[in-house]
Amino acid sequence: MGPGPISADPRVLRAMSAALVGQYDPAMTGYMNEVMELYRGVFKTQNEQTLLIDGTSRAGIEAALVSLVEPGQKVLVPIFGRFGYLLKEIAGRIGADVVVREKEWGQVFTPAEIESAIREEKPHLLALVQGDTSTTMNQPLEEIGALCAAHGVLFYTDATASLGGNDFRADEWGIDAATAGLQKCLGGPSGSAPITLSDQAVDVIRSRRHVEEGIDDGSTGQGVRIASNYFDLSQILDYWGPARLNHHTEATSMLYGARECARLLLAEGMDNAVARHALHGRAMAEGLKGLGLTLFGDTAHKMNNVVAVHIPDGINGDAARAAMLNDYGIEIGTSFGPLHGKVWRIGTMGYNARKDAVMLTLAALEQVLRTGGVTVPASGGVQAALEVYGA
Amino acid sequence: MGPGPISADPRVLRAMSAALVGQYDPAMTGYMNEVMELYRGVFKTQNEQTLLIDGTSRAGIEAALVSLVEPGQKVLVPIFGRFGYLLKEIAGRIGADVVVREKEWGQVFTPAEIESAIREEKPHLLALVQGDTSTTMNQPLEEIGALCAAHGVLFYTDATASLGGNDFRADEWGIDAATAGLQKCLGGPSGSAPITLSDQAVDVIRSRRHVEEGIDDGSTGQGVRIASNYFDLSQILDYWGPARLNHHTEATSMLYGARECARLLLAEGMDNAVARHALHGRAMAEGLKGLGLTLFGDTAHKMNNVVAVHIPDGINGDAARAAMLNDYGIEIGTSFGPLHGKVWRIGTMGYNARKDAVMLTLAALEQVLRTGGVTVPASGGVQAALEVYGA
Repeated sequence: MGPGPISADPRVLRAMSAALVGQYDPAMTGYMNEVMELYRGVFKTQNEQTLLIDGTSRAGIEAALVSLVEPGQKVLVPIFGRFGYLLKEIAGRIGADVVVREKEWGQVFTPAEIESAIREEKPHLLALVQGDTSTTMNQPLEEIGALCAAHGVLFYTDATASLGGNDFRADEWGIDAATAGLQKCLGGPSGSAPITLSDQAVDVIRSRRHVEEGIDDGSTGQGVRIASNYFDLSQILDYWGPARLNHHTEATSMLYGARECARLLLAEGMDNAVARHALHGRAMAEGLKGLGLTLFGDTAHKMNNVVAVHIPDGINGDAARAAMLNDYGIEIGTSFGPLHGKVWRIGTMGYNARKDAVMLTLAALEQVLRTGGVTVPASGGVQAALEVYGA
Repeated sequence: MGPGPISADPRVLRAMSAALVGQYDPAMTGYMNEVMELYRGVFKTQNEQTLLIDGTSRAGIEAALVSLVEPGQKVLVPIFGRFGYLLKEIAGRIGADVVVREKEWGQVFTPAEIESAIREEKPHLLALVQGDTSTTMNQPLEEIGALCAAHGVLFYTDATASLGGNDFRADEWGIDAATAGLQKCLGGPSGSAPITLSDQAVDVIRSRRHVEEGIDDGSTGQGVRIASNYFDLSQILDYWGPARLNHHTEATSMLYGARECARLLLAEGMDNAVARHALHGRAMAEGLKGLGLTLFGDTAHKMNNVVAVHIPDGINGDAARAAMLNDYGIEIGTSFGPLHGKVWRIGTMGYNARKDAVMLTLAALEQVLRTGGVTVPASGGVQAALEVYGA
């Protein structure tokens, strides 16, 4: 019940144990095409170029940034938590001219603040986290795409922690590139990073197409070469597209898992999945308040799938987390940087966005708090949660 | 039965469906430590830094090269097939000064040729493929480490296609860095790249340690920063080490799979596994000759786990491959570049290094050859294979 990775859906794990097929077996390329279509549904996009990067969620981030941004181009990163710093870090490593704006942890940016920064900095690309689990804040994105379009800025968002549990609309919100991971609201294991790219993003990427030596058909050699082979989206698009250009060997079992994550979500309906995360997230938050704890941050902008609470006085936060894990088999998290040891973070995401998971966590936490010396109302957590559930 | 990826061992796939545990759960960090020890056995090394990169085999290559080589440093790549070009490509993308030597496809380099190139080029690092599936050649490495040490050159080898099926001795052969993948002789799916690093390689990497902003403890800032966050081995070592520095979220299911691959190989014994690949590889090669086909290349240096044969006159190579797949459910490959459409490549690796797999493939190929208009001796393939098996 931490901020992710979370327990994967058993159906996803079963899907991953299916027999492998060859890299260019029609069954395999059929699965790849199916995965593209499934993730169009998950991202709410018509983008042809919607596929998987073979690595964890930050592999998706790096693939997007290294392919969309040339060394020296300006990237604007509004930072409201640890994962904003990660975008800054990754963009900096690939040689971008990175400029940032920073928000106090626990807050989000207004569209006006972002527009003002765009006017001042005139970046090539805006890189903005949607849900930053370090603070539990969910940055509103609805108006950002139009701002970027008006100023000729590419708009990339990291939806790793938010996708599937919070509203996300790639096309409607004018997002040029978005990446995610399976290990949060999608209910799978870490190791595959879904990505979607607008036509405009694809044009930027294709302008840098350099097919690797050994399989080059002579069509290569334009633009500034992407400084990574593994994350070269121009080649990866050709591997997922009709050209079936040889690049990496697709991580077949992870693809099976990613496929099942999307199938389950789309069968449920994306809006229903978001509503489920909202319900169980609210039950968890109210339950924690019912235990006398104080929520962290601007809760009007809290992600549905994770909540942070101030660790109460008189208890050792790490000892309490250890007791939750060792005595009750439930993992909860702390956070990074300024919040390390100050808050606990508790997730309700993916397969763990369930009533029994919420109730058991609140029941166990009540025991751990009391044993740790904190005065807690008996059954205050589970009663508050049950009220949310309408029981 | 292609050159890989191959059918994974069902035991590996079952291991991958185990429930996930949290990223810093003592069970998970225990598994990580266990994986490090297991792969020391697989690589035949005492290297403390033996771990997994979360991506396909070329992710391991890029992690090694981008972390060991600074832009402008010279890398020498002796090329004897498509995957030598891949090393050149990856090293070039990261800004290395790449120099190459090239061999006709189907041959390997002598130690004297490599020493001569080292003397002429004085590279920072030698990057050499062990087994190049594009030509099926297995480059002898026994003497190369000593040559590199004598000249102060770091020695990296790509053992993706060879490890587990051909002799490999990281320590005895003086290898500073080696990477692999699961989808060949290790019997697993693509998506995790085992890597081992000598103390000397670790020193080079640690000299470039820059902890990412957001979690930096102030200990950072030496050397030329590695131009990738995802492949920054200095941080990845700290994630796998006692510091447990937050970096990516380990791909847990892939780690379970990698762990099971190594457990199975070590239970069999690495030398026994190599002998198994040699036996079934010889049976396949003799069987193909028994069908009247001609082997490609310097067979004295053929990898145990894959064989290439010239496509005989009078048959459409791609149609025959399609018939193998569609009528018999068996995948075989062609090759790249100068060998595309000229040879078929047939693997006997990992879970497919089995007598029944060899016999069925030869039986089916006999039918496909005859149907395609090639005159083949009745049962010539399976009889020749049975002689190898001593039946």
